[in-house]
Amino acid sequence: MTHKVRTIQFGSYQYDFWYGKHVISQLSSWFAKQDTMPSSFVLIADTGIPPRILEETSMELGRVGNVHVLRFEPGEEHKNLATVAQLCEQVIGLGADRRTVMVAVGGGVTGNIAGMVAGMLFRGLPLIHVPTTLMAASDSVLSLKQAVNLSSGKNLVGFYYAPRIVCVELGYITSLPVREIRAGLCEVVKNILTIAPEESERFKAIFRSDHHYHTSELGDIIDFCIRAKSTVMREDPFEKKSGLILEYGHTIGHALELASKGQYNHGESVAFGMLCAARIAEKLGLLSREAVNLHYELLNQIGAWIQPSQELLPAIEHILHSDNKRGYRQNRTGYTGMVLLQGLGQPAMQHESYITLVPNELIHEVMQEQIRLKQSVVS
Amino acid sequence: MTHKVRTIQFGSYQYDFWYGKHVISQLSSWFAKQDTMPSSFVLIADTGIPPRILEETSMELGRVGNVHVLRFEPGEEHKNLATVAQLCEQVIGLGADRRTVMVAVGGGVTGNIAGMVAGMLFRGLPLIHVPTTLMAASDSVLSLKQAVNLSSGKNLVGFYYAPRIVCVELGYITSLPVREIRAGLCEVVKNILTIAPEESERFKAIFRSDHHYHTSELGDIIDFCIRAKSTVMREDPFEKKSGLILEYGHTIGHALELASKGQYNHGESVAFGMLCAARIAEKLGLLSREAVNLHYELLNQIGAWIQPSQELLPAIEHILHSDNKRGYRQNRTGYTGMVLLQGLGQPAMQHESYITLVPNELIHEVMQEQIRLKQSVVS
Repeated sequence: MTHKVRTIQFGSYQYDFWYGKHVISQLSSWFAKQDTMPSSFVLIADTGIPPRILEETSMELGRVGNVHVLRFEPGEEHKNLATVAQLCEQVIGLGADRRTVMVAVGGGVTGNIAGMVAGMLFRGLPLIHVPTTLMAASDSVLSLKQAVNLSSGKNLVGFYYAPRIVCVELGYITSLPVREIRAGLCEVVKNILTIAPEESERFKAIFRSDHHYHTSELGDIIDFCIRAKSTVMREDPFEKKSGLILEYGHTIGHALELASKGQYNHGESVAFGMLCAARIAEKLGLLSREAVNLHYELLNQIGAWIQPSQELLPAIEHILHSDNKRGYRQNRTGYTGMVLLQGLGQPAMQHESYITLVPNELIHEVMQEQIRLKQSVVS
Repeated sequence: MTHKVRTIQFGSYQYDFWYGKHVISQLSSWFAKQDTMPSSFVLIADTGIPPRILEETSMELGRVGNVHVLRFEPGEEHKNLATVAQLCEQVIGLGADRRTVMVAVGGGVTGNIAGMVAGMLFRGLPLIHVPTTLMAASDSVLSLKQAVNLSSGKNLVGFYYAPRIVCVELGYITSLPVREIRAGLCEVVKNILTIAPEESERFKAIFRSDHHYHTSELGDIIDFCIRAKSTVMREDPFEKKSGLILEYGHTIGHALELASKGQYNHGESVAFGMLCAARIAEKLGLLSREAVNLHYELLNQIGAWIQPSQELLPAIEHILHSDNKRGYRQNRTGYTGMVLLQGLGQPAMQHESYITLVPNELIHEVMQEQIRLKQSVVS
């Protein structure tokens, strides 16, 4: 497939999104056409990124200027302000100036950490994303949100910052382990259910249980996410109003991800969160059985139906009550704010808010049922 | 004098600026008129702020909701990401949510630290500035720039963030020590020289060596700064183009401030920086002797003419070469980028840039002369 270029427009923020095979090799000629040349490049990657990817990217950018590589330890426990501060010091130590370009090579965590470093140094250095996971390529880089964790909660500190270019090398994505592809597809399913249900039939024909996709199929999937997310983020770049729909499945999802301490990845956790959200909406009379079934069908097809153990429930519920959506609406004791659907592609509204207050007992009941549900019942 | 309200418009950023006597007591009634009430307030102040000021502010905001106070150690050595991270953890520890309002009570450093905490928590909490120094009230809060230091340099990490309200209680300003008033007036003189030289006669009649000003005079001074800074920042909210004029005197000023390790405060250092910048511009044929003399005259009048010791020169020059304007223009060995005037109120342009490359020998020569200059020669 050829090299595709899309322009992302989220509010007043604009950036280029490139995807294709050998798209990395376009970077040097792009810089050659710019008015001001970068003084240097600093690649930020975690220590788990294959050396081959860093070498390819370094070699390409090396045609333009000096390239430095900084590494940090992967894992949520290092996604914090201390890591951001340390990288900032290191970048300056390398002699960076305002014309230094930061390059994030890796998954969503790397994109966020490098996004914060780039956003803060000299109050904003140019940033290029080279996402190496499907989750990063189809979801994280289609957001202006940058954040890291505090000891008291995930993603509690951050800001909004846009890259100049997103450069998705599809060859990196096709070679990913099945579980990582599946994790990315969970957010794709979220986009189908919440924004573009009319595309569900088309995707049912694409999704495969072995997750061996052709680069052109991955390109189609990414292009769909660009279109779907742009629909809401063009008008709501900060994801505070209609963009909150992108948080679908994330209230319970985040809590499960955290409670399971890494047993379930982000995609799997959000899949569980969406199934619970659908059943809650059904019980509240917002969503039809048919719509709920489409959730099961799509998530089943990509193999993302997980059954967390009963023992995780108390921890999930504890975390739910300190969710970082707290404060989007007035707190109400015994209730948790959630993003729900009132029909496929239609966010549920309660008192003009995209956050619906759901009784904690109902959440408990639905999570219990979901955990006990036999996969065969629905699939 | 009565309570004055101005609307600050820097690009698409807008906020209210209140100043006057007893203006703090307007806060609770302002909140009573808003659609959503804050869930709580967190005041951030350094340990040097008089308890009376914190009590007054807490009592007023206490009519609206719970008020917490967090303190940090004053001084440049604590103006870093570690302090920001610690305060973020503490704010969340107090149970803050998206409707928590952050209140910065103090000088410029407090405004920057609290600005970063407010800007990052939940990717942006509402912020109120209660500046307690003239420098903060007339300069720092009229900027969107937030920053803290890295070990390798001042203000190297930060971002842009706007408050909701600036609330200047003039009673707090009148009771400041003379040296603090004078420091603030140095930036006022900068605004006169760079933006509104036509106001110099009026200010010559206001400035007094004892620095005992009536609140109405302080109100006039602050109002002038609002108008002067708005002239450039309305179109350049990020201070990267025409707004760079606000960096006048800051290249050498910052270096002196740092090299002197606190012996000279920011205002005094910028005063020295402006005198050097004026003499450099004169030697480059950009500025008339008359214009240079107005620099001496105004700074003399407020008693801001300092004579740093000869021994500081090497340290100043070392710092100049790693100034955080590096990269605004292509580096050139043996030159330092500076903001200069080509006439009062007129930024010097070199190759369409507001940064003029000045030979390091010329900077050295002028600093030498300035240090040796007898104050009586000009005054």
